[in-house]
Order: sequence, then structure tokens, then C-alpha cells
Amino acid sequence: MTVCESYYPSEPTKPSVATSSIPGPKSQKELAELGKVFDARPAYFVADYEKSVGNYIVDADENVYLDLYAQISSIALGYNNPSLIKAAQSPEMIRALVDRPALGNFPSKDLTGILSKLLKFAPKGQDKIWSGLSGADANELAFKAAFMYYRSKQRGYSTEFSAEENESVMENSLPGSPHLAVMSFKRAFHGRLFASGSVTCSKPIHKLDFPAFNWPHAEYPSYQFPLEANEEANRAEDDRCLKIVEDLITSWPIPVAALIIEPIQSEGGDNHASKYFLQKLRDVTLKHGVVYIIDEVQTGVGATGKFWCHEWAEITPAVDLVTFSKKFQSAGYFFHDPEFIPNKAYRQFNTWCGDPARMIIAGAIGQEVVDKSLVEQCARVGDYLFGKLEALQSQYPKYFQNLRGKKRGTFIAWDLPTTDLRDSLLKNLKLNGCNVGGCAEKSVRLRPALTFEEKHADIFVDTLKKVVPQL
Amino acid sequence: MTVCESYYPSEPTKPSVATSSIPGPKSQKELAELGKVFDARPAYFVADYEKSVGNYIVDADENVYLDLYAQISSIALGYNNPSLIKAAQSPEMIRALVDRPALGNFPSKDLTGILSKLLKFAPKGQDKIWSGLSGADANELAFKAAFMYYRSKQRGYSTEFSAEENESVMENSLPGSPHLAVMSFKRAFHGRLFASGSVTCSKPIHKLDFPAFNWPHAEYPSYQFPLEANEEANRAEDDRCLKIVEDLITSWPIPVAALIIEPIQSEGGDNHASKYFLQKLRDVTLKHGVVYIIDEVQTGVGATGKFWCHEWAEITPAVDLVTFSKKFQSAGYFFHDPEFIPNKAYRQFNTWCGDPARMIIAGAIGQEVVDKSLVEQCARVGDYLFGKLEALQSQYPKYFQNLRGKKRGTFIAWDLPTTDLRDSLLKNLKLNGCNVGGCAEKSVRLRPALTFEEKHADIFVDTLKKVVPQL
Repeated sequence: MTVCESYYPSEPTKPSVATSSIPGPKSQKELAELGKVFDARPAYFVADYEKSVGNYIVDADENVYLDLYAQISSIALGYNNPSLIKAAQSPEMIRALVDRPALGNFPSKDLTGILSKLLKFAPKGQDKIWSGLSGADANELAFKAAFMYYRSKQRGYSTEFSAEENESVMENSLPGSPHLAVMSFKRAFHGRLFASGSVTCSKPIHKLDFPAFNWPHAEYPSYQFPLEANEEANRAEDDRCLKIVEDLITSWPIPVAALIIEPIQSEGGDNHASKYFLQKLRDVTLKHGVVYIIDEVQTGVGATGKFWCHEWAEITPAVDLVTFSKKFQSAGYFFHDPEFIPNKAYRQFNTWCGDPARMIIAGAIGQEVVDKSLVEQCARVGDYLFGKLEALQSQYPKYFQNLRGKKRGTFIAWDLPTTDLRDSLLKNLKLNGCNVGGCAEKSVRLRPALTFEEKHADIFVDTLKKVVPQL
Repeated sequence: MTVCESYYPSEPTKPSVATSSIPGPKSQKELAELGKVFDARPAYFVADYEKSVGNYIVDADENVYLDLYAQISSIALGYNNPSLIKAAQSPEMIRALVDRPALGNFPSKDLTGILSKLLKFAPKGQDKIWSGLSGADANELAFKAAFMYYRSKQRGYSTEFSAEENESVMENSLPGSPHLAVMSFKRAFHGRLFASGSVTCSKPIHKLDFPAFNWPHAEYPSYQFPLEANEEANRAEDDRCLKIVEDLITSWPIPVAALIIEPIQSEGGDNHASKYFLQKLRDVTLKHGVVYIIDEVQTGVGATGKFWCHEWAEITPAVDLVTFSKKFQSAGYFFHDPEFIPNKAYRQFNTWCGDPARMIIAGAIGQEVVDKSLVEQCARVGDYLFGKLEALQSQYPKYFQNLRGKKRGTFIAWDLPTTDLRDSLLKNLKLNGCNVGGCAEKSVRLRPALTFEEKHADIFVDTLKKVVPQL
């Protein structure tokens, strides 16, 4: 019996779509109601989570889709997972929901245990955690940690703030409110608040009309695929981008305190960074005293065939901060250097300091991933699926451009010639029972749960074989 | 039978503290463990939420405190409330926890119902909602709404973005990333992320070393108490501050797109704003085309004797955006003007668009508040308690300076002569079984749950009578 079968004995054996358009009539009716109180325009359909099971999501019209998008890459174990239901019904969950604590001031007796469970799954080298509420929040909390660390290196960790700092900060002015930057990369996505929005650089619509910090965006490598046939050109691309990174660090009018990067730019097009590139960034950040932050919000928790994607790069010494969210259903950052603990209490602080309800779910997810060897399974299924897609690529090279994500679990993407063709493919996939997402302008990205197995890959590939020739 | 007795038949009849210091030995031991993985320095003690009940919080040493702080003003109905336990065990909660949806793309069938429940409790004039994850998040989402609205007024709601805007925004530059400001007030607290941090102005420690936007802080009125004996002076103070507001709007080098204000500055010292001041701000913001945002994160959900504190001011026309969090255990903003819905989808968007688990709890809290008439009860109990405190003020004027919050439910505060004396009072209250918080430099703030009744007020007043003479 496979892991998926053991979780979901009643999982459908195949998708079924009965409506001629999506959203179907019942979804449309419910969206019209929802639209009166909520911005429902981005909705693909209205989901029926009660009926959804395992790798299949069901909509209000009872259409059943094989889900390769998984709530924008956020469902780790499939729908209505029995282990998570157990965690959701536990007495500690009831308390976490009903008596939501201000964890900084009044930590619960079980908090050490809850956090220690999460730390079991921390990336190599990281042994401490700070918790937040979303990926954007996690990144901004990491920026705060980085700024405090950077200034403490300049000032001395235990040096008191000056009177001038204490006064000027209340005016949002120098020196208490310093001019410091976080460097990120073109096509990056790190969230949509104001600091996270300033490092995000994937689409104008995410940022237009919002004030931004004057922070620099370096260039993220654009590789030629397949990687193994283009090593020399891609190494040159790495070096070109590394030079831009270092040039910006030394020339930007505002000191660069931190650098944040996704090991695979997800929202921005599934752009991969090589082991060489990620390691060289460690060298450059150490050389210039820049805090190195890896954003694993979308890549983390198993989907790339490692628990954390940047483990593929074996970066040495370990990066400074690693942020997480999505598949952990919780958020925050891991770190190892004790000097990232602020020199005084209440500097990294807020009312809730995270949500224990979501932390409990995260711990249960991590435990299942390990107990059921789901990272290894994802690597295996990803290899299987990638092989099938390579075959399709040979047959339809026009519709499978830049196929990428080989040996990266099910974290796979490719390009269509145009946005219209990509959107048309996604639409036809949905009408044929496969819920798949896009990214960037003309990419398809696969983001199934870790419970996605070979039989599901077969269904998806068969569906592609049906719809691609109709493009 | 009182509401509290019906909820909590086994609530303790009085506090009991057995340890000679707080945190007690067991709390200290657990905090040492917690400190290895988490910043535990701000902890008052380790709480045992399993044993906590109603208005009483129990710590790891089995000390039982009457709780007048309620998780920094975040517990609405007391600990282990039976109605919330029921909500936490509901099938819709299990699904919300286990199948956390990306509500924007894949809204659940029950989302309209969940949101409509929350809208039942919206402030007068507000009939729409957008959801977030914390008070800081709610405020920043409101800023995004305000900036889009402000620019759409200049550009035209349906006008397309220019090529120059689409390009410059990717460089964090003008005109796509405009220079626009949110005005706030000195001593304000609106959160600790980067935009919310820029409008926060309560203590340097909240802001030091973080880059900030160059946004202005006007002056919040400082009244003389009791209000009824100082009407003329306080009106002059209102006018002085209003002039500063208008001067800053017209002179600040960056256009002021929005103004955010707490109807009572909570973290910053329980500073009250008069009905006159809050109404005049409506006049000024309308005159200058500035979006008016009321931050009800700490004042909302009943504690001031109205469901929303700014209802006391009967502001006409209704303010533009009202943010909430804390006692609703959920976060977001209410609004009424359809033009605050962005002109395109995906401008106000993120993966989760809120947490349905927390929204379900918020709906259950609101329903209990209404069904059990807890706003009215809080007004009644607040009047009762305020009378007792006025009597203590007559007896110990030195230790009850600027007693404030009359006719504002249990949202009551006063000042001690010094920070040391305030801290000493809080410490002795704790040792005598009352958990109470401070705010600003030398204020005591009362923030009990809405289940706080006359008998609890009597216990607190008796404890004050014991510890104040010992100061």
C-alpha cells in the first residue's frame, strides 16, 4: 500500500469535470455572493473542502480535480489528512485556539515542546527559531533581525543607544532610523507588505502605487536548459550576476545590510540558482558583512526532494537566516548565530509572536513528512514525472520550452511560447480535471502535495497528451 | 446567575499566589528551557492555559491571578470559554485548520458565511471587509488600500497604468513607487513592521535600527483630568493639535495620503481623543482628500462600553477604514466605499488572505458579545470600577494621577509619579494575585476580558487598598 493509499483509502481514482466552463454555475453563483463582501475576482472556483480528499480538490459544482497547485504550493499532505485532523482535535489545539496567548509575555507550558518539534526540521546549521504569521511577515521579521545585527556589529553588541539615536528614531530620522538596504533580485517574490514589497520584483501589479524603500535588485541568473548540456554558458551567467551583486553592494548609495534570495524563484518563473551561485553569495556576503537570508517560503518542506531546497547547495558556512511559511502552514525564520538574538528584550516582539495553533499543525506536518519518508518519495515521483515530461518535450518542443526542475522533486516548470498559450493550456488542463498554476509571464509550475505519486503523475501526463495537441 | 457564572461555574472565587517571587521557581525553570529556542526575556511567567478559567490565569507554579491584562488586551471572553471550545471543535474549524485555503484563489464554500458573521459586528457605516493576520498586518493592508485609493483619485479609477509607471515600480522608483505618506501621532502604536513601524511613535526600543519612511507624526491631545472639570483647556488643546495636523498635511514634503489614529492611544499611555477632535479630523481629512483610518486594534470589541470605541465620537460621515485584531483573535479592516476595492484584481492579494480558523473564532466571539450583552455589561462594570477608583484617588491622589476612562467601560488607566513606582505597584499587584499591565512610562492600564464583573472589580480594588499604602 502506498503512503497516499494509507492516508486516503477513498481518494478518487481519476478527476471528473462535468461543467462546460470553470468556474461552473454553482461556483459562479457563490462567487457573486462572496463578491459583495470580499474581493472574489481572483477566484478560480469555490472549493468544497469537505469533499476534497488527498490529491483531489472538489469544487462547488462537484467537479473533481487532481490538484497540482495545492493552494499556491501550501498543502503539504493532501486534503483532509487524518494525521492533521488528529492534531486539529487535540486538547492542546483547542487551548491554542480558544486562549490565544501573547506568547512573548505569557508563554504557554507547551510552547517549548511545540517549538522544539519545529526545530527538529530546521535546515542544517540552524538551531533557533522566531515565529511569525505569513511568508511576508517572516521575511520582514528576518529583516528586523538582520538590521539589528548589522548595527550591533557597527556599534558593539552591548553598547547602549545614544541620546541622539533615541530622539531621532521618534522622528523616523537618522541616526536612530538608519538608511540601510536589503538587496534582492529581479523577478524575486518575497511578499507584499512594504519592506517585503520593496524586495519583491516579479510583477508591477504587486507593487504599483505603494511607497517603497530605495533598495537594489541584482540580477538572478537566467540559465539555458537542460542544465547538463549548458554548463559553460550557465557558469558565465552565474559570474555575470555575481559581479552585479558585488558591484551593487559596493556602490549602492545606501549600505546593504542583508541579501535575500529564493533558491528557486517561484512566483517569478521557477528560475533556478546553481550550487555555485548560492555558495559564491555566501562568500560575497561574508566578505562585505552582509546578512545572508534564504527565503524558503515556497521551496521549503520537501517539494524539491530535500526538506529545504538550499540544502542542495550545501552552502558553507550555513546562511544566517532561513524563512519559511506555506507548506508548514505557519511562518517564521530559523537562525543559528546567538548574536541574532537582539541585545535587549522587546526589540523583536509583538502581541502574539506567532500562532500556536498553526505551529501545532506545522509540527504535525513535519513529523508526517519524516515518518512517511515523503521527501524521498517526492524526489522519486519527481524523477518519474520529469522523465515523462522530457518525452513530451521531445514530441512537442514548442510547448515544453526550458523544462526545468530535474532532480528537484516535483518542483517542475516549463515555458509556453506566449502568455495566451500558457493560459490556454492551464484552462484546458482544468477542464480536463487537472488544477495547475502558472508563474511569471508564460510558465507552468507544478506544485502538488508531497502525497502526489506515480499514478497521479500518469493521470497528469495523460491529460497533457490530450490537451497539448489541441493548443 | 451572572454571565460569568453561567460560563464558568468553577471559576475561582479569589486569587492565590504561593510563590514569594514571580516568575516562581517552576516558571523560571521552564523559561530557562524556553530561552534556549525562543526569546523568553519578556515573559512575566509561564502560563498553564489548561488550568486557567474565566477571568483567572494560572501559572506553572499554580499561582492563580485575577487577569486584568488578558494577553495584552486580547482575550475577550475569559479563558476556556465553553462557546469558543464548541467553535474550536466544529467540523468547519477542523477543515480550516487542516486544509488551510488560499482564500483569494480557492475560497471555501463557507467563506461568505464566515465573513458575513464578522460584518454583523462592523462599525456603523462599514459593510465590507478585508482580512489579515495581525494588527500590524491589518494596518499595512489598510495603508495599501489607502494608497491605491489616493492614486486612483489622481489618475482616474479605471485609467490604465502608464508604461513609465510599470517600469519604474520595478526599480522602486517614481512614478510607479510614489512618495506618499501616512500621518500618525506622537505616542501612537500601530505595529512593528516597516510601514506600521513608521507610524508607530510610542517608544524608541520598538523602532531603533530599522529603516523608516519619512512620515510625519502630529501631536495627539494631552488632556487634563477629570475631563468634565477641564473642558475649556482641553478644547484649546484639541485646537492646538488640529492646527498641527493641518499644517503638516499642507507643508510635509511628501503628500499625506492617509491619517491613522487610535481613538484612545493604548500602548502610548491611554491618551484619549475627544469626540470634537475625532470629528474635526474627519473635516480636515475630507478637506484635504486624506484617507481617514481608525485603528481599533486594542480599543475594539466592547472594552470601552461600545462595540467600537470610535462610535462614542459619532463621526459623520463615517471614517474610511477601521482596522481590528486582538479581541477578535483575527485581523483586517472594515470599509464602506466601493472605490476602496482596487480597480484590478490581485492588487490587494496574498497567498492566504487571512486565516479562516481565526475568523471562525472571531465570529463566535462577536456572537457571544451580542447574545450576552457583554458591551452593556462592560459599560456597567466599568462605571462601577471607576467610581471605586475615584474614591481611592481621593484617598491617595499621589498614586492615582490622571485617572481616565470614565464612561469608557473597563478601559481605565492612571499614572504613578514615576516609572519605578508604577513598576513597583504592578509587581506588588501580581504578588497579591492581580495580573495588570502598564503602558507608556508611568501608567497603569486595565484591560480585563468582557466577562469581568463587579465581584472581580471588588477583589481588584481590595488588592489596591492593600498594596498602594505600601508603596
